Amino acid sequence: MMNTAPALQSFLTKEEAEEIRRRFGTPTYVYREDILEQNAKAVLAFPNAFGLTARYAMKANPNRTILEIFDRLGLHIDASTVYEAERAISVGGVNPKKIQLTSQVIHDEALLKELVRQGVLFNATSLHQLDIASRVMPGGEISIRINPGEGSGVYKSLTTGGEDSSFGIWHEQLLEAKRIVDNHGINVVGLHTHIGSGAKPEVWQATAALSLPLAKEFPNVIKFSLGGGFKTARMPDEKTTNLQVCGEQIVAEFEKFYKETGRKLHLEIEPGTYLVANAGVLLSTVMDVKRTTPGNDYVLVNAGMTEALRIPLYAAQHPLRIILADSGSRDEQDYVVCGPCCESTDVLTPVPKYLENPAVRTALESEGHTDLLEFQRTRRLTVAQIGDLLEVGGCGAYCESMSAIWYNSIPQAAAVLVRNDGNIVPIASRGNLSQLVSREMLPEGY
Amino acid sequence: MMNTAPALQSFLTKEEAEEIRRRFGTPTYVYREDILEQNAKAVLAFPNAFGLTARYAMKANPNRTILEIFDRLGLHIDASTVYEAERAISVGGVNPKKIQLTSQVIHDEALLKELVRQGVLFNATSLHQLDIASRVMPGGEISIRINPGEGSGVYKSLTTGGEDSSFGIWHEQLLEAKRIVDNHGINVVGLHTHIGSGAKPEVWQATAALSLPLAKEFPNVIKFSLGGGFKTARMPDEKTTNLQVCGEQIVAEFEKFYKETGRKLHLEIEPGTYLVANAGVLLSTVMDVKRTTPGNDYVLVNAGMTEALRIPLYAAQHPLRIILADSGSRDEQDYVVCGPCCESTDVLTPVPKYLENPAVRTALESEGHTDLLEFQRTRRLTVAQIGDLLEVGGCGAYCESMSAIWYNSIPQAAAVLVRNDGNIVPIASRGNLSQLVSREMLPEGY
Repeated sequence: MMNTAPALQSFLTKEEAEEIRRRFGTPTYVYREDILEQNAKAVLAFPNAFGLTARYAMKANPNRTILEIFDRLGLHIDASTVYEAERAISVGGVNPKKIQLTSQVIHDEALLKELVRQGVLFNATSLHQLDIASRVMPGGEISIRINPGEGSGVYKSLTTGGEDSSFGIWHEQLLEAKRIVDNHGINVVGLHTHIGSGAKPEVWQATAALSLPLAKEFPNVIKFSLGGGFKTARMPDEKTTNLQVCGEQIVAEFEKFYKETGRKLHLEIEPGTYLVANAGVLLSTVMDVKRTTPGNDYVLVNAGMTEALRIPLYAAQHPLRIILADSGSRDEQDYVVCGPCCESTDVLTPVPKYLENPAVRTALESEGHTDLLEFQRTRRLTVAQIGDLLEVGGCGAYCESMSAIWYNSIPQAAAVLVRNDGNIVPIASRGNLSQLVSREMLPEGY
Repeated sequence: MMNTAPALQSFLTKEEAEEIRRRFGTPTYVYREDILEQNAKAVLAFPNAFGLTARYAMKANPNRTILEIFDRLGLHIDASTVYEAERAISVGGVNPKKIQLTSQVIHDEALLKELVRQGVLFNATSLHQLDIASRVMPGGEISIRINPGEGSGVYKSLTTGGEDSSFGIWHEQLLEAKRIVDNHGINVVGLHTHIGSGAKPEVWQATAALSLPLAKEFPNVIKFSLGGGFKTARMPDEKTTNLQVCGEQIVAEFEKFYKETGRKLHLEIEPGTYLVANAGVLLSTVMDVKRTTPGNDYVLVNAGMTEALRIPLYAAQHPLRIILADSGSRDEQDYVVCGPCCESTDVLTPVPKYLENPAVRTALESEGHTDLLEFQRTRRLTVAQIGDLLEVGGCGAYCESMSAIWYNSIPQAAAVLVRNDGNIVPIASRGNLSQLVSREMLPEGY
């Protein structure tokens, strides 16, 4: 089984990239059916003591075709809003019974009620959501998301658990939660914690050790979800979670809980990035090459924050590869790579945000923190010429689904799938102006 | 004339806010016709020596109704892509002769050719774009955007000029630019610099002093654009550019150029934020209130990065105001305000990005840079209850046009206009799922 990220250097052949540009234009998201399937199989083989349900966190990429591929292979769905659950059912063809809904807020109680009626499992994330459940589904089954706190201190840098996180019901409010569900005859069948665990198996183990005892308070709980957050390497120097090692550590905790309580808890996990990040790239065209002296060499491409917002939003590092338009070979040089928006933030080679703050930079410099200042804002690439292609790797997750689409009125990008037989087929068309403005209307007198 | 930002405390009355929620739901962008008009008039009164054209940088908010309002009042258009120019003409009803196009890349040469044929003035931003012009409009009229470099060093912190900016033709390449336009009989009638100048009039003066002499190289230049970037206060402790003082400093530079050359240059400016930022708010509903102990009080609302991306993207500070659902009065307390997305970034009370980096925080702490560490991630607000409204101020610019729309499959927000007669009318409808997925298609076999 393949647990590591596929080598991105070979994601698209030059011929595939040229075909995509010719048939569909750029920028275009490109996904590979084989990698999607391989990732799904790796996740479904996650070690477990007493059974496993793996849910795809569809916010990572809710494209209909991707939902269908994962549904066929046996993944269930983690929906983060009532709208996602509705989309999975009505567009993705997913059986509602395979969907669990975990949402920061309930946008629409009537829609929640209908989803629950169809079989969606509601995972309440606050005391108020338990009140909502008591109205929407009295006597029904529910799951509860708990924020277990920082525990042993292993979690200092984690961002979706602990006192500085708004996610889930604070662990000290569990008795209050129990009182609400008991008052309304609601049956708590699942618990859920997700604290953004990263790549280290020992952190996953600690999370499980901290979380599982919470199930002792809820005798009808038969499943426990540890959420997602399996670190996935996009860049060569990053490390992907080893699912086997990680899962084995968790197995031990589930077995320990069984020995203590006689209860065999079913494990759930909710990967998003792991399933899709390296199954997709963003294919763009080199539109211009510029130089300031002294200064930088710039490559300007026709994709950026409008297609891969996470790069400027998090200063995220993604692999970049120039695909030559001609058949020659060329040297390498350092570039700043810019997107097409009239916006200095629209850069594909971002520096960490702290380096953008002059006061912080000065403070770090004056105190000699050279390790924090060494970051290059340039990337070494094959010498680029206008008309070349640029492949932005690791764009399968949180790009098509999370971008500043339509900024600068740039049409939303198309998407294609490279099928297992080598055929390249469209799975989303490029946006057009009439779609964009169909929501707008003029008041009387204009 | 009103040059300062309107007081945001009074943007919406409680009655207006309740009416908007009742008729249109939330989240909804709300604009005021009176403030839009007042801002346009302030900009059109910008001091000038030999005439003024003020262009609205439509990327700030290209809503059709806003384009119509500004068009009627006499503002011209600064378009940042060929798509924006097309939108202004075909949807906004703008005369093409009132549009100047300044784009980092030319997405579509055929569309550019058609726009220029209709009368759009092309402002080339690179040597390659001059080559494009030679194909698209041989013998035609053009403007050129120049990156004048850092000059005297006043500009260290500015972001769209200088060696670390990709915007415009580097000043040392002007002779090469001249060669290209002369070879193709292209007539350079305008020059353009935009170096993101901020609030200080003396910086605007320095920009003009640095830029205007470039016109000596181009004898047919009759207009000079200094771009936009007038700082606009959203928060009480920020300072809005005084347009009168700023403009008077620039007048002196244009008169000086006239004395030296006998040429009366027409001034152009291109404000975006100044015209719309404080003419709009984002109205949202308080969906939940939570607490971690020790920790924070959280308010969860149904708007965030999907409607106001610039808050997490830049850690931008916007005014927040609770509008009570009942008629009582309440105390204040400190809150972290969160948006609805399943994403720890989705916070309306962001800390500077550098504080999110543990290594940077530790370094600053250990060296005693307390001034850089004092930032609060909480905001003092009226005690919030579920069902209250939250008004996010300063959302007229770069919110409706630049957001992670449809992330978590959340429908794009509606927009309304509060007219001068007090009527509240819809100017954009809320998104729906069928629009969202209309771009998607399943391959054969699925």
